[in-house]
Amino acid sequence: MKPHSSQSETGLFDGVLAAGGVAAAVSDASWLQAMLDAEAALAGALADVGLISAAGAAAISACCKADLFDIGELGRAATGSGNPVVPLVKALTNAVPEPANRHVHRGATSQDILDTASMLVASRALLPLLDDLSAAASMCADLAQKHQHTTMAGRTLLQQALPTTFGLLAATWLHGLDTAVDGLVRLRKTRLAIQFGGAAGTLASLGEDGVRVAAAMARRLELAEPVLPWHTERTRIADLASATATAAGAVGTIAKDITLLAQTEVGEVSEAAGGGSSTLPHKQNPIAAIAALAGAAQAPGLASTLLATMPQEYERAAGNWHAQWRPLTDLLRVTGSAAFWLRTSLSGLNVHSERMRSNVDITGGLLMAERVTSALTEELGRQVAHQLVTAACQRTLHSGQSLAAELTADDKIPLTGEQVDKLLRPEDYLGSTQTFIDRSLAAHRRADD
Amino acid sequence: MKPHSSQSETGLFDGVLAAGGVAAAVSDASWLQAMLDAEAALAGALADVGLISAAGAAAISACCKADLFDIGELGRAATGSGNPVVPLVKALTNAVPEPANRHVHRGATSQDILDTASMLVASRALLPLLDDLSAAASMCADLAQKHQHTTMAGRTLLQQALPTTFGLLAATWLHGLDTAVDGLVRLRKTRLAIQFGGAAGTLASLGEDGVRVAAAMARRLELAEPVLPWHTERTRIADLASATATAAGAVGTIAKDITLLAQTEVGEVSEAAGGGSSTLPHKQNPIAAIAALAGAAQAPGLASTLLATMPQEYERAAGNWHAQWRPLTDLLRVTGSAAFWLRTSLSGLNVHSERMRSNVDITGGLLMAERVTSALTEELGRQVAHQLVTAACQRTLHSGQSLAAELTADDKIPLTGEQVDKLLRPEDYLGSTQTFIDRSLAAHRRADD
Amino acid sequence: MKPHSSQSETGLFDGVLAAGGVAAAVSDASWLQAMLDAEAALAGALADVGLISAAGAAAISACCKADLFDIGELGRAATGSGNPVVPLVKALTNAVPEPANRHVHRGATSQDILDTASMLVASRALLPLLDDLSAAASMCADLAQKHQHTTMAGRTLLQQALPTTFGLLAATWLHGLDTAVDGLVRLRKTRLAIQFGGAAGTLASLGEDGVRVAAAMARRLELAEPVLPWHTERTRIADLASATATAAGAVGTIAKDITLLAQTEVGEVSEAAGGGSSTLPHKQNPIAAIAALAGAAQAPGLASTLLATMPQEYERAAGNWHAQWRPLTDLLRVTGSAAFWLRTSLSGLNVHSERMRSNVDITGGLLMAERVTSALTEELGRQVAHQLVTAACQRTLHSGQSLAAELTADDKIPLTGEQVDKLLRPEDYLGSTQTFIDRSLAAHRRADD
Amino acid sequence: MKPHSSQSETGLFDGVLAAGGVAAAVSDASWLQAMLDAEAALAGALADVGLISAAGAAAISACCKADLFDIGELGRAATGSGNPVVPLVKALTNAVPEPANRHVHRGATSQDILDTASMLVASRALLPLLDDLSAAASMCADLAQKHQHTTMAGRTLLQQALPTTFGLLAATWLHGLDTAVDGLVRLRKTRLAIQFGGAAGTLASLGEDGVRVAAAMARRLELAEPVLPWHTERTRIADLASATATAAGAVGTIAKDITLLAQTEVGEVSEAAGGGSSTLPHKQNPIAAIAALAGAAQAPGLASTLLATMPQEYERAAGNWHAQWRPLTDLLRVTGSAAFWLRTSLSGLNVHSERMRSNVDITGGLLMAERVTSALTEELGRQVAHQLVTAACQRTLHSGQSLAAELTADDKIPLTGEQVDKLLRPEDYLGSTQTFIDRSLAAHRRADD
Repeated sequence: MKPHSSQSETGLFDGVLAAGGVAAAVSDASWLQAMLDAEAALAGALADVGLISAAGAAAISACCKADLFDIGELGRAATGSGNPVVPLVKALTNAVPEPANRHVHRGATSQDILDTASMLVASRALLPLLDDLSAAASMCADLAQKHQHTTMAGRTLLQQALPTTFGLLAATWLHGLDTAVDGLVRLRKTRLAIQFGGAAGTLASLGEDGVRVAAAMARRLELAEPVLPWHTERTRIADLASATATAAGAVGTIAKDITLLAQTEVGEVSEAAGGGSSTLPHKQNPIAAIAALAGAAQAPGLASTLLATMPQEYERAAGNWHAQWRPLTDLLRVTGSAAFWLRTSLSGLNVHSERMRSNVDITGGLLMAERVTSALTEELGRQVAHQLVTAACQRTLHSGQSLAAELTADDKIPLTGEQVDKLLRPEDYLGSTQTFIDRSLAAHRRADD
Repeated sequence: MKPHSSQSETGLFDGVLAAGGVAAAVSDASWLQAMLDAEAALAGALADVGLISAAGAAAISACCKADLFDIGELGRAATGSGNPVVPLVKALTNAVPEPANRHVHRGATSQDILDTASMLVASRALLPLLDDLSAAASMCADLAQKHQHTTMAGRTLLQQALPTTFGLLAATWLHGLDTAVDGLVRLRKTRLAIQFGGAAGTLASLGEDGVRVAAAMARRLELAEPVLPWHTERTRIADLASATATAAGAVGTIAKDITLLAQTEVGEVSEAAGGGSSTLPHKQNPIAAIAALAGAAQAPGLASTLLATMPQEYERAAGNWHAQWRPLTDLLRVTGSAAFWLRTSLSGLNVHSERMRSNVDITGGLLMAERVTSALTEELGRQVAHQLVTAACQRTLHSGQSLAAELTADDKIPLTGEQVDKLLRPEDYLGSTQTFIDRSLAAHRRADD
Repeated sequence: MKPHSSQSETGLFDGVLAAGGVAAAVSDASWLQAMLDAEAALAGALADVGLISAAGAAAISACCKADLFDIGELGRAATGSGNPVVPLVKALTNAVPEPANRHVHRGATSQDILDTASMLVASRALLPLLDDLSAAASMCADLAQKHQHTTMAGRTLLQQALPTTFGLLAATWLHGLDTAVDGLVRLRKTRLAIQFGGAAGTLASLGEDGVRVAAAMARRLELAEPVLPWHTERTRIADLASATATAAGAVGTIAKDITLLAQTEVGEVSEAAGGGSSTLPHKQNPIAAIAALAGAAQAPGLASTLLATMPQEYERAAGNWHAQWRPLTDLLRVTGSAAFWLRTSLSGLNVHSERMRSNVDITGGLLMAERVTSALTEELGRQVAHQLVTAACQRTLHSGQSLAAELTADDKIPLTGEQVDKLLRPEDYLGSTQTFIDRSLAAHRRADD
Repeated sequence: MKPHSSQSETGLFDGVLAAGGVAAAVSDASWLQAMLDAEAALAGALADVGLISAAGAAAISACCKADLFDIGELGRAATGSGNPVVPLVKALTNAVPEPANRHVHRGATSQDILDTASMLVASRALLPLLDDLSAAASMCADLAQKHQHTTMAGRTLLQQALPTTFGLLAATWLHGLDTAVDGLVRLRKTRLAIQFGGAAGTLASLGEDGVRVAAAMARRLELAEPVLPWHTERTRIADLASATATAAGAVGTIAKDITLLAQTEVGEVSEAAGGGSSTLPHKQNPIAAIAALAGAAQAPGLASTLLATMPQEYERAAGNWHAQWRPLTDLLRVTGSAAFWLRTSLSGLNVHSERMRSNVDITGGLLMAERVTSALTEELGRQVAHQLVTAACQRTLHSGQSLAAELTADDKIPLTGEQVDKLLRPEDYLGSTQTFIDRSLAAHRRADD
C-alpha cells in the first residue's frame, strides 16, 4: 500500500523545505492511494457484513491502485464538483467491471473518503516523523550522556549567566523531543479514526447496517471507529494539528540553540557537513539546523488555520472543511522536514568542548559572582554581600582584571586568594545538573520501552 | 488562596468578551496571588528540607497575600527589571521581618516564580472553564436525549440534504465538548508542573539540596515535579495552548450552529433571553451564541503566538518567554468567556420542533430523493435511477409541485403513489441516527464517572 | 517570459484550491524562470555598465530558459546548499560557454537571485489576481446597478432587521473589492524591487560599480531599485502579504454572503452551475463560493507566518528567510484561487428578486417596526412609542397576525389602518440606500480610469 | 479630549508589555471617551444639518465626558446587550436633560458608535506610536551617520561573512522604520473613517438627511467620510492591522539584532541602562531590546485574528465583529510597547566600535577570502582561484595561523606578502556601503519633510 513514487516529484524548494520521509507520505500520490484504500476498505466492509459478495469487494479492491489513475486529470475534474473524490469515484466505477461497479462508494459521501484518507495519510506520515524525532532524541541522549561533565556557560537573555554543562542542555533538548514524541504516539494510537456517515451523517442509505459496515471498515484500516461521524466535529484535526505543531516547536528550540552555538563568536558546535557558501569559501553554515528552523517556523500559522476552521456548519461544512486539506498536509510536511533536518544536524554535530570551557572564562570569572555572593551572605548579610560583589564585578568589567583579582583586592571582602579561587571554580558550582541529566535519560529510556 | 476581587475590575468589553469565572481567575490579582503562592511554597519547601526554620517559612508565608501589594506599583517597577517578580521580591523582602526576610526567593530566579504562577493560574482557571464546558455538555446530552426523535433537515454546504434528527446534531455537539473536556482534564492532571531551576536551571545556589526543595515545593502546590527545569522547554505551554484552543473550537462549532438555526428564515431555535436591539424592537438576537463565537474566534491567533514563541534560547530566553505571559492569559480568558456564553445559550435554548419538521418539507420532498434513487437502483440500475430522480427533482424545483407528484407522474418510474408516499417519509429514513445518539450519550456517561 | 507549462502539473486538490491563473504564475517552473530572468538581467546589467561584453551577457541570457533545467534535480541538489540558487548557478555556469560562463551570477549572492525572483513571481502573479478581482468587481457593479431597486431584508446578527436593497449589498461588496484592488495595484507599482547586495549587502566584489549594476538590473526587470539591500529588511514581504491577505478577506466576505443567501431556507441567490452532489441529485450547492471561502480561509495563517518571520538577523538570516518562500507562494495561490472562484460564482449568479421581496414579508411586517416607532415618537415620546411598538411586535410573533393588524388593533396607537399600511411599505424606508449605491459605483468608475 | 487617567491602571505586566504612550491611548477610558466623542459629534452633526437645535446638541455634548460614567458598570451591563454602547446610550440619555435627551444616538446603531470610536482610538494611538517610531528612526539615522566608517563583521546565517560597517546596519534599520512610519502615516491620513449607517446600513430613520449628517459628523471628528457604511466591509481594519503589524516586525528586526550584538561573546553593543538580575550582579541584560521583542512577537497572531474575522455576514455580523475589538486594541498596545522599548534601547545604546573591529579579526582574515578569490580569478580562472583560497581557509581554520600566512605560504598562489596584506584590509573592501548609507539618510530626510 505504498504510494507509487512516479507521481511524487521533488519541487524546487523541497530539498530544503520538504526533506525526509514525510514529504512522500503526504504527496498527492499518497493522498490518492489513501482515498483508494478507503474505498477498498469500504467495499471489503460491505462484504464483511454481507451487503455485497466477497467477489464484488475483491473486484473493487483490485482497482484501488493509484497507478491506475491520473492525478492531474482528477485534480482538474474536481473543479466542477468541489472535491477530488467525486471524479475519483466516477473513474473507479468505470474501472471496476460490472456488476461490482454498482457497489463502488456505496453508502459513503465524498467527505467520508477524504477524511478517512486524511487519517491514513496522517497515520503513515507520522511514522517517518516519529522515526526522525526518535533518532534525534537518541542523539540528544548520547550528547547528554557524553557531555555530562562538559562545563559550558549557561546563558540567559543571551548573556552568560552561570556555569552549566552541555550535558544538561542536551538533556533539556531530549526531554522536549521525548514529550513531542509521546504526544504524537498517543495521538496516533487514540485519535485517528475512520469517517463514515454518508451524505448527512446518518448512514441512512445503508438502513440498519451502517454501523456494522463502519466497524468493519475501521478494522480493515486499523483506524479507530468513532462514536459518531465527525464531519463537523473537528477535534481530531485540532489534536493532530496541535501535536504536530508542538513537535515543530520542540525541534525549532533545539535548532535555534545549534545556530546560536555555531556562531563564529561562540564556536561551541559546528555541523559536520556545514554548508559551503557559493562566494564565501571559509563559511561553515549550520545549514541543517537552519533548514530545521525554516520548517518549524511555518508550523504555527498552519496550525492556527486548522484551529480557526474548526467551526463547521451543521452536518457538513461550506468552506472550512475544504480549507483544511492543504494546511494539514503542509503542516505534516514542514514538521517532517524540520525533524529530518534536526536529525541530520545532530547526527554529525561537532561539539567543541574546549571552546565551551574557554568561553566560560571570557568574563574573567564573572559567571561565578552568584556563588561568591552566596558564600558571603551568611557573614555579611545578603544586601551587603550583593553590593560588594556587584562592585567587584563592575570593576572587573572596566579594569580588564579578573574577578578573582578584584575580589581579593577588596579589603571589605573577608576571603583569602585561595578561598576565592576555590569559589570561582565553575565545575564545583553545578548544583543539580547531574541529577537532571540522569532523570532526563531515565525518562527517555522508559519512553523507549 | 482566592484572589482578592477588589483589584479585579470589569473592563468595558468584559461583559461580552470576558464573561464567566475564568476572567477573575486570570486577573492580575490572581496572577499576583499565584506568584506569592509560589514564593510561600518555596519558603515552605526550604523548611521542609531543613534549609530554613519552620518559623522563617511561616513568617514569609504570612506576607504572601496579594492584598499587601500594589499591582500598579509592581507593574510600573517592572519597567526597569524586565519582569514583575523582581520588584515583587523586593517588596516581599521588605514586608517580611528579619531574619526570615533573608530567605525570601532563595534559590529561585524570577522565571521560576512566574512560570510556576502561570501553572497555578492555569490550574485554577481551568476549573471554571471545565465547569462551564461540562455544564454545556450536560445540556447537549439533555437535548440529544429529548430530541432523539425530532426530525429536522440535515444540511450540508448550507443546503438541505437529507433528514436527520436534532438529537443527532446535539449528540455531535456533545461529543465535541466531551473530547475538549477530556483533553483539558488530562492536561490539568499531567502537564501542569512547578518551575524551579534557579538562575540558569542548575539550582547551583542550593548545592545538593535543590531537587529536594523542588519536590517539596511541587507537593505543596499540588503541581507535578518536572523531570528538569523547563525554562526553555516549552511543550507544557504548547499543550496548554492546544487543549484550550481546541476547546474554543469545539465551543465555536456549536455556537455557529445555534446562530444559523436561529436565523429568521430558519427559526428552529431561539435563545430564551434573546438580546433586544436598541432600535429594532422585534429582534431576538442569539446574543449568547454570538458572544461565544466572538470569544472562540480570538483563540487560534493567540495559540499561534504561543506556538511560535516556543523556540527559546539556551537556558532562559530573550523575548519569547516574555511574549507568552499575555497570550496565555488572554487565551484562557477568551475561551472561558466562550464556554460561559455557550452554557448560557444552551441553558435556555428554545427548540422549535414543529418548525424543524416543517422546514423538512419546504423542498417538497426533495430531501428524500436519495432514498428514491436507492429504491429504484435494484430494478433500474444506478445510472438510470439517478437520471430519472434527478429529472423529477429538476421538475419539482421549477414546477412548484411536490416531488411525490412529479415521481408519480413519470411513467418510466415504476412506483405507485402509495409506494412513493412511503418512500418519502423522512422519519423512516434516519439510518443509524439512534445508534449514534445512544453511543454519544454512553460515552458522555462514561466520561462523567 | 512565460513559465513553460510542461512542469506545472495540476495537483489532486488544485481544481478546488489552486484555480485561476495565479497557480501557474507561482508554480515551481515560474519560480525557476524568474530566477533565470534575474540572472539574465544581472548579466545584461553587467554589460550595461561595461563590466562584461554584450556578447557575454547575450551568451548568458541565451541559457536562462527554464526548459533547459530540471526542477527535480535542482530541488534535490539544494539539499546540501540550503537553497536552490546554488545548484542553479552551477548548472547555468555549465550551460554557458566559455568565457562568458565566468560572469554568471557575478557580484550576486543566492538571496539576491531568490528575492528578486520572488518579486518577479509576485509581480506576474498579481496580474491574474487583479484580473479576477477586477472582473468580480465589475460584476458587483452590474449587480449594484441592476438591483438598485430590488428590496430585500437587511440582516444583522443573522436576523432580519430592516429593509435594504440587494443593490446596496452588492455596492458594499464592490467597495471591498475596489479597496483590495487599489491596495494591490499600489503595492505592485511601488513596493516590488530587485534585491542586489552581494554576500553581505555591500556589493563589495563589484568595487565602485555595484550600485550602477543594480540600477541597470532594476531597469531591465521593470522593478524598483531599492534604497539599499533588503536582505533582512522585510517590510516589502510584509506589505505584499498584507495586501494579498486583505484581498482574500474581501473575497471571503462576499463568498460568505453568497453561501448564506443560497441557503435552502433563504433562496435569494443560486449559482448557475451549482455543484451537483454524488448522492443527492436535488442539491444546488454554491460550489464556487464555497471554494472561494476555502481559499480565503487559508490566507490569515500564511500572512501571520510572513509577519512572524520578519525579524531576520544581521546581514542575512538563519532560517526566517527560508521560512518565507513557501508561505509567500501559497498565500498568492490561495488568494488567487479564491478570487477566481468568486469571479466564477458572480459570473453566473442567479438573483431571485421575488424571493428577496417575499422574504421581507415573512415576519409579517416586523422589519418596519423601527419606522413605526419613529413615526410615533413625536406624538408619544420615544419611550412610550418604543414600548407600544415592542408590545405589538411581541403579539405579532405569537399571534401569527401581521404587525399591521396588531398596530391597528391597539387603541393606544394613534394610527389609521391606511397610515399603518403606508408606514409598513419597505420600499419607502430605504433612507440613503440609493446615494450609497451611486457613490460606490462612482468610486468604482474613478478607480477604473 | 484626553482620556482621564484615573481609570487607566497599570497592570502587572504592563511595565514590560504595555510601555509607552499607546497603552493609555487604547485604555478602556480612552475607548469610552472615544465613544462619547462619537455621540457628541453625531449630536453636533444633527444640529449642523438642522435636525436638532444647537442647544440640544450642546446639552448632549456637555454630558459626553468619560468621567461621568462608570466603566465597570457599563462593562457589566453590556452582558445582556452584546456590546457596551447599549448601556452607554441608556446612561447618556439619563444624563442629558429633556428634551435634548430624545436626540441622543439618533439615527445611529451601536456599531456606528463603536466602529467610529475604534477609528478615533486608532488615530490617537498612532500619534505616540509614530512618535516613538520616528524617534527610533532618528537615532538610527544618527548611528548610521556616526558609524559610517565603523568597520564590523557582516554576518550571514549567524556566521561572519564579509566586512561591513555598523553604519550600514543602522541605515538598514533606519529604512525599515521609515517604511513602517510611511505606511502608518498614509493609513492614518486616508483610511480612518467614521462609521454611520444606522441599524442596517441604510440610514433609513434619517430619511433624506442621513448622508448630510454623516458628512458633518466626519468633519467634526476629523475622520474621513466613507463612500458607504463599512459595517461588514472590513478592509479598513485589515489595513490598520497590517500597517501596525508591519511596524512591529520592523521594530522586532532591530531589537533582535541588538540582543545578538549584545551577547557576551559578541559584545559590540550594550544598553546604557542594562537590566540587572536579581541574582546575577554582573549581568547587563539588554532589557529594553528584549521587551521590544516581547511586544513585537505578539503582533502576528493578533493581526491574523483581525484578518481571519474579515468575513462578516450581510449588513452586520454575528460574532466576527465582536471578535475584533480586543485584538485591535491589543495589537496597537503591543506594537506601541515594542516601539517605546526600541526607542529606549537605542537612546542609550553603547556602541563598542573597537570590539566591532577586533571581532572582524577573530577569524584570522577569513572574512576577506572572497576578495582574494576575486583578485586571483582573472589570472587563475574562477574555479582554480576558488579551490586555492578554500584550501587556504581550511588550513587557517585548523592551523590557527592567519589567512595571510597561509596564502603567502602557498606557492601556487601568485601573491606577495605585501599584496596579501593589502587585499586583506577590511576597510578597503566595503563596496557600495557608503552609497547605501547616504541614500538611506537622504530618504529619511525626505520622509521627514
